[in-house]
Amino acid sequence: MKSITSRDNPLYKRLKALAGSTAQQRRSGHALLEGLHLADAYLQAAGQPETCVVTEGVLRHDEAREIVGRIDPARVYTLPDALFGQLSGVVHGVGMVLLVEKPTLVLPERMDQTCMILDGVQDAGNVGSILRSAAAAGIQHVFCVPGTVYAWSSKVLRAGMGAHFLLSIYEDVETADLTSRLNPNVLVTITDSHGAKAIYDADLSGPLAWVMGNEGAGVSRFWRDNAALRVTIPQPGGMESLNVAAAAAVCIFEQCRQQRA
Amino acid sequence: MKSITSRDNPLYKRLKALAGSTAQQRRSGHALLEGLHLADAYLQAAGQPETCVVTEGVLRHDEAREIVGRIDPARVYTLPDALFGQLSGVVHGVGMVLLVEKPTLVLPERMDQTCMILDGVQDAGNVGSILRSAAAAGIQHVFCVPGTVYAWSSKVLRAGMGAHFLLSIYEDVETADLTSRLNPNVLVTITDSHGAKAIYDADLSGPLAWVMGNEGAGVSRFWRDNAALRVTIPQPGGMESLNVAAAAAVCIFEQCRQQRA
Repeated sequence: MKSITSRDNPLYKRLKALAGSTAQQRRSGHALLEGLHLADAYLQAAGQPETCVVTEGVLRHDEAREIVGRIDPARVYTLPDALFGQLSGVVHGVGMVLLVEKPTLVLPERMDQTCMILDGVQDAGNVGSILRSAAAAGIQHVFCVPGTVYAWSSKVLRAGMGAHFLLSIYEDVETADLTSRLNPNVLVTITDSHGAKAIYDADLSGPLAWVMGNEGAGVSRFWRDNAALRVTIPQPGGMESLNVAAAAAVCIFEQCRQQRA
Repeated sequence: MKSITSRDNPLYKRLKALAGSTAQQRRSGHALLEGLHLADAYLQAAGQPETCVVTEGVLRHDEAREIVGRIDPARVYTLPDALFGQLSGVVHGVGMVLLVEKPTLVLPERMDQTCMILDGVQDAGNVGSILRSAAAAGIQHVFCVPGTVYAWSSKVLRAGMGAHFLLSIYEDVETADLTSRLNPNVLVTITDSHGAKAIYDADLSGPLAWVMGNEGAGVSRFWRDNAALRVTIPQPGGMESLNVAAAAAVCIFEQCRQQRA
């Protein structure tokens, strides 16, 4: 374990530049994981981080010490609080950040399982919640088409609570690349409040490609035109729609219910 | 329709003070509704606002003009962009804010219908999403116990998308006041990942009081001890839990499914 004491330290300067710019994280293919929960989830699912920085204070906590103990000491750096504070996006930061490389994924040749397509979902909390629901339901593949918020930003990572490390998340996927890879038995499925079949009456027992659309505009024209199945979540109270992450959870777990039955 | 041109105008000063402080909104019993969607939803469900302020620019849009046309002209004020900008919490604000009085509610003598209890839910987006799901499912009453985020803040209102105006939302409800009013046939129901019955196998056809807990700590001791029904959402993928608003949606709509069957 080494100490960084100067703001001119090259590693610190690199971390600070990444922390201040999601665009730079994206370009460099790296992500910053803040807090004990994400660090623990990453170590369990993915292995060693590139670098771990901690405050001296956090090492007084048993849980933090236990987590740091699982990381190669050559990769761990302690920082004074003042320097750490300039890295952390969490208001009541817990004094631990992991720098990790984002997995490099190649689109699968054929998709024959249930998957999620995020079609312009913009809110980081919604994307994180959808990833979490997908991972909980045992869905492996999530495809983000252009217009969707960057899935490895600190906010999405925080809301995802570790789901990122269980999933294969493909970003900037062109719709043509995706449709050509979907097996014909995987039904492209959208939610549609007008005239579609009630989700409980639709057969969701086979593999589906769930498309979740933008918070304001909904599912885009392309996917509406290419949907094989349109379902509606009956809403006896008469609000016109649900939050997209709430709707995704209802859809995914209704499919789980049918597959379990 | 009147114009406000000076930042010393008393109404403007009052609005600015409210916009800058959720605590002050809370104390005064008022809420600020930003944007066309919330304004439209309020006018449909609740009637006239106390005051409506708009930018001159927004009145060039048909939809905004139509909404303003439904408001008593004596309550409408136009503002220059620079003054309006200091009121609005929306990044790409649409130039319309309604000042409304929060409904004053008295706890019902007896609760014999399905209701929601928010037990320390802290994230504004989560509370808004839960309110939206509740309104969509036809649930009328939502009880917020101390520790839950203020339900009429701008962020919760935005995420609620108008659900606030369809619901009766009771805040700072003491648990004893609530339990004494719940009819014995209304089952206090919590989600519990350990050893509870799968939600699909539980009988949700009668009235339930759904308790949704804090994002980190979950449902508090009191409600765990007082739950009549514990259900779990089976998660074949093995993530340990769902986002609270996603879990709430799955619960509420599984109840809708059973009641519909």
